[in-house]
Order: sequence, then C-alpha cells, then structure tokens
Amino acid sequence: MTKPVTLFELAAADPEVRFSPHCWKVRYALAHKQVDAERVPWRFTDKDAISFSGQGLVPVLVHGDDVLTDSWRIANFLETQYPDHPALFGDAAQPLAEFINAWADGALLPRIARIILVNIHDNLADKDKPYFRQSREKRFGAPLEEVASNRPELLKDLGAALAPLRGVLKSRPFLAGEEPRYADYSVLGMFIWARCVSEIELLQPDDPVHHWRDRLLDIFGGLGRKAPSIVARATA
Amino acid sequence: MTKPVTLFELAAADPEVRFSPHCWKVRYALAHKQVDAERVPWRFTDKDAISFSGQGLVPVLVHGDDVLTDSWRIANFLETQYPDHPALFGDAAQPLAEFINAWADGALLPRIARIILVNIHDNLADKDKPYFRQSREKRFGAPLEEVASNRPELLKDLGAALAPLRGVLKSRPFLAGEEPRYADYSVLGMFIWARCVSEIELLQPDDPVHHWRDRLLDIFGGLGRKAPSIVARATA
Repeated sequence: MTKPVTLFELAAADPEVRFSPHCWKVRYALAHKQVDAERVPWRFTDKDAISFSGQGLVPVLVHGDDVLTDSWRIANFLETQYPDHPALFGDAAQPLAEFINAWADGALLPRIARIILVNIHDNLADKDKPYFRQSREKRFGAPLEEVASNRPELLKDLGAALAPLRGVLKSRPFLAGEEPRYADYSVLGMFIWARCVSEIELLQPDDPVHHWRDRLLDIFGGLGRKAPSIVARATA
Repeated sequence: MTKPVTLFELAAADPEVRFSPHCWKVRYALAHKQVDAERVPWRFTDKDAISFSGQGLVPVLVHGDDVLTDSWRIANFLETQYPDHPALFGDAAQPLAEFINAWADGALLPRIARIILVNIHDNLADKDKPYFRQSREKRFGAPLEEVASNRPELLKDLGAALAPLRGVLKSRPFLAGEEPRYADYSVLGMFIWARCVSEIELLQPDDPVHHWRDRLLDIFGGLGRKAPSIVARATA
C-alpha cells in the first residue's frame, strides 16, 4: 500500500496557489484516506505534461501504475483501493454523495465562477491568461468584467442556491452527519477555490454554511485554512 | 406493531385526487415500509380537522398514540418505528437524503408550482379556491395566470434544475442506487403532484429523469401510476 502517489493540481501564477475546486476535493479525499501524495503544479496550457492521462484536465492522480482523472472517479478509486482506511462514503450513501457532487458542480460552481472570474484571471500565469479569458468568455457569453459586475446580485443568488445545504446544517455539524465525508469535501472545494484566488467573502457571518466551512477549513491540521492563497501570499 | 395508522392527505375538489407532493412522499414511505394506513382526504381550509396536530398543514400521520407532522419527520419516525422493515435510508445515507429532500423542496417544488398553479387552483374544492389564489399570489408576487404564462421558459428552467439528478441516473436506475429509497420518493413526490392535477408533461421523452419517473410510478403495484388524477377521473 506504499505505492508512489502523484497529484497534478491547477496552479496560479504563483505555483503555490492551487485553487481548482476539483483538485481540492481530491486533496481532502487523500487527507481523509490518510494517503500521502506528491503534488505537482500544473497550468491550463501545460497540456503536454498530462497527455499521458489521455486528456487535458486536472486533477490527474498517478497511483502506482494507475492513472486516474476526474475527481469523482478518483474518490471512488481511493475508497476501493483503501477499504481499511476511513470511509469516504459508506455503502448506502455513495449514490447520494454523487448527487451532491453533481449539485455542487452544477449549481454552485457556475455561480461562484461568475463572482471570481476576474480574480482567477488576474492571478494566472501570463501564458494561461489568454486561454482562460477566451474559454470563459465563450462559456459565459460576455467579457469577464461584465459577468462579474453585479456582485451583490450574484452573492444573493449564490446564497439562495445554498438553501438545501443550509437546511441540513441547522441540525448537524457536517453534511454527512456527525463527521465529514466526501459529500462535504465536494462542496467545500468550491469555497476553497474562491478563497485561494480572491478576498471576496461569499457568505454572511451568521450563515450556518459559514460555520460549516470554518469547521472544514480546520480539519486535517488546517488543510484548507492554510492553503496558499493570493491574499496570504501577498501579505506574507 | 399493528397500531392503527391514519394519514391525512390534501385533496382536490374530487376527494379521490390526492395531489400534495409531501403527502406522496409519505405514501411511498409507508409502501416501502409495508405499513398500511387509512387515508383521509383533507382540504386547505379544513384547519379544524387537524388542529389536534398543533398546526395546520398535511401530511399528518396518526400512529397509535403518536401524532406526526412534516413528511421528513414522518419518514424518520417510520424508519425508527419499523427497524426490521426495508430501510428507507441506511445509516450513512440519512443525512444526504435530507439534503436531497431539501433540494427537491427548494429547487424543484417552486419551479413545478409555477407551471401547474392554475391547474391546481381549477381542481380545488370551491371553498379552497380563494385561500389558494390569495396565498399563492402573495408567495409568487403575481396573478396565478401570469406566473404560469410562459410555459416553455418555465419547462426549460425546470429541465436545467434537474441536472444533478440526470447526471446520477445515467449510471444507475435509482437515485439511491440499484433499489429505490426515500431519496427517490422525496423527488418523485414533486412529479406525482403535477401528474395528479394537470396533463402538462414536465419532461422530455428521452430524459433519463423521465425513465426514472416511469420506474418509480410502477413500483409498489403501480402506486403512483394508478394515483387518481383529474385526467384519469375525467376520462374514466
């Protein structure tokens, strides 16, 4: 079980700033499973560096002879590979966790993206900036600055979309119950992403989601709390 | 375990048409748990009939000496009360099922409501119509007919909101996995509600959600398929 493990992670201009929400899901999954990995910074335009994976997106996890892509597939691989380590799902909960992962990607990611698009752009390596601007302006159908312009409205919309999470967190500390599991990490990734590349506060201080995020930032020795961010790096 | 069980269910003008999505969640939970219940029709304005429950909404479940309200609380009560009957959740999955229930109530119910508001109204008992129109027009901020006017746009918006469910159903027959559980029923309730009071098709025929709905309408001897609806009743 001591196979070499390597994780390719999306990096900003500052290679220590690793901001991808999907890579963060994998970081927390590895921490939960108590699996160490070498972490390799990767940029949007470094397609050659991960061409061995047969596609062009991170996270890419190299685990011994296995090459895994897609954070959901990686989480399931880790669960199968390390059955005696703490469970990421629990049998009956795995399908429901997949739903929550899809909800985070479909309902939260685009809403947070609109808010932090300009911040992401400004913190990318120069060679990545044209790629990012072009692909995201195509996706959102407007210049980045325009997509992000009405921040109060975007924050309100995000707050409304978080309603199901807020409801559950009123009666328990984590989405998965008394202890966090992958369902928590798949949503948390969205918030660490924003935290890494911007100073924008996405949540009201009295929001149960805010307290939940705080709890998760602190587990695993402050894994999320200590994540290099453009803010922390600028003031260090 | 053979305590008398009574379920108060919201009824249309035709008392056999029981359309409340939350009552349907409980119907499926009872069927899953193999618990028989006497089903009592109830109308929005029949507040006195359920005043013993300390509030004014259905579902209300009377189980021996216990009086339960709120479909989520009822489902959890049944799971605890009948531990040897088929599990509605599975331990690790219960918190995640609560999230999905909250998602259905928060993201699907209002979207479907906008589409079928006029149909609901038209099929209520006459004494309920003023209550329904007034309360719903206040909630949605416009006359019922106006809220429901742009149906193609509302259907498109609903289709987009179903994305996380659609994603999961590409790789398995039910939201909860190989067999349906309460997470499935909590979403299905929304579709039976619409089916009971209108002929509007909410889903494209090639949508995985459509096939999933078909499978659930057929289980428990066609419990949902055979539900009295205004359409079935009009042509019977």
